[in-house]
Amino acid sequence: MFNKNDVSMSVIRRLPRYYRFLDKLLKKDILKISSRELSEIMGITASQIRQDFHCFGGFGQQGYGYNVKILHESIESILNIASIKKSILIGAGNLGRAIVSYANFKDKGFKIVGVFDKDPNLIGKNIGNYFIEDIKLLCEYCKKYKPTVAILCIPQASAEKLSKTLIDLGIKGFWNFSHYDFTKKFDKIAVENVHLSDSLLTLGFQVDNLSY
Amino acid sequence: MFNKNDVSMSVIRRLPRYYRFLDKLLKKDILKISSRELSEIMGITASQIRQDFHCFGGFGQQGYGYNVKILHESIESILNIASIKKSILIGAGNLGRAIVSYANFKDKGFKIVGVFDKDPNLIGKNIGNYFIEDIKLLCEYCKKYKPTVAILCIPQASAEKLSKTLIDLGIKGFWNFSHYDFTKKFDKIAVENVHLSDSLLTLGFQVDNLSY
Repeated sequence: MFNKNDVSMSVIRRLPRYYRFLDKLLKKDILKISSRELSEIMGITASQIRQDFHCFGGFGQQGYGYNVKILHESIESILNIASIKKSILIGAGNLGRAIVSYANFKDKGFKIVGVFDKDPNLIGKNIGNYFIEDIKLLCEYCKKYKPTVAILCIPQASAEKLSKTLIDLGIKGFWNFSHYDFTKKFDKIAVENVHLSDSLLTLGFQVDNLSY
Repeated sequence: MFNKNDVSMSVIRRLPRYYRFLDKLLKKDILKISSRELSEIMGITASQIRQDFHCFGGFGQQGYGYNVKILHESIESILNIASIKKSILIGAGNLGRAIVSYANFKDKGFKIVGVFDKDPNLIGKNIGNYFIEDIKLLCEYCKKYKPTVAILCIPQASAEKLSKTLIDLGIKGFWNFSHYDFTKKFDKIAVENVHLSDSLLTLGFQVDNLSY
């Protein structure tokens, strides 16, 4: 039913948003919804929604609306949320601290198995429920616990220095808050960049040019 | 030279990234660069770079490469970084705390003039150099200091409740970390959403489907 080759990354990027809205509908006991109704609450066209869902086999019968529960479950299954990915956080400063306490990792399919820093003032302390390990123990730790995802809350230079080591240690995915650019340097890894400062600069432009 | 109507939002979104790379070049005293060289370090095609820069009048002479300093200054001017936008942060929890200490606001054209929370345990304390004000003082504060940007580090329901008030108080731009969806509800405001959990879900999919 779901042929990955038919689905572009831009469709995939919209799935988490559908998932959030469907989650809200389920919590309100709304079990059926048409693409038109979904379009109204999500602010995207009904035709876009139908096209997106069509990539995954349709999820519903034309004219009857979508079954919210099935749709929710299907997206959950496509995003593979049930398969928990072991993750390490590198950088236990302000941002790392916020990320650890902000994101509900388990609900998103992730579990933090280690937090690392190189700062002697942080090593040995806790952030949230996590003990901050010395970055020197990284190799040993990865060999033992085999994490596949690294969350990088460190400066660009440190990220650049660590990236190859992390990949050699089995890291396949990076949630990258640093400005280090993985583009083209490595094959077969997944990178989600969160460039907060780029977002802020874009906002600045938009505020000054509200007609955009 | 720069006609805003010719420039799409997707080009604008790439400007902060150009700006970052050019900044690095300047710091290394590299004053000339060709689109091909820039393409190699940035991982986007030279043709894309030429097209993007063409929107703003070119920035350089064909065959001679771009003047890095002029390019950097021009992008800075388009992004209007020198015009500081007064901003308020709403929500002084973990995420708000991280945002305040993480982002170098001044370098991005923003200045935080107030931090607000409704939690009596936070009100009256400091985050970084900022005093946490009672959200009840929001109206009075905005009338006095006239901020134009609000950074929302609060839950969706609170953001939904506050959004109209903030717009009525003169807020034109939102750096939105909440899951509240401004789409279509308001005209003539700028919104930059940072949906950390969507990004995490997308990463999960990519890690499980590395051929993407």
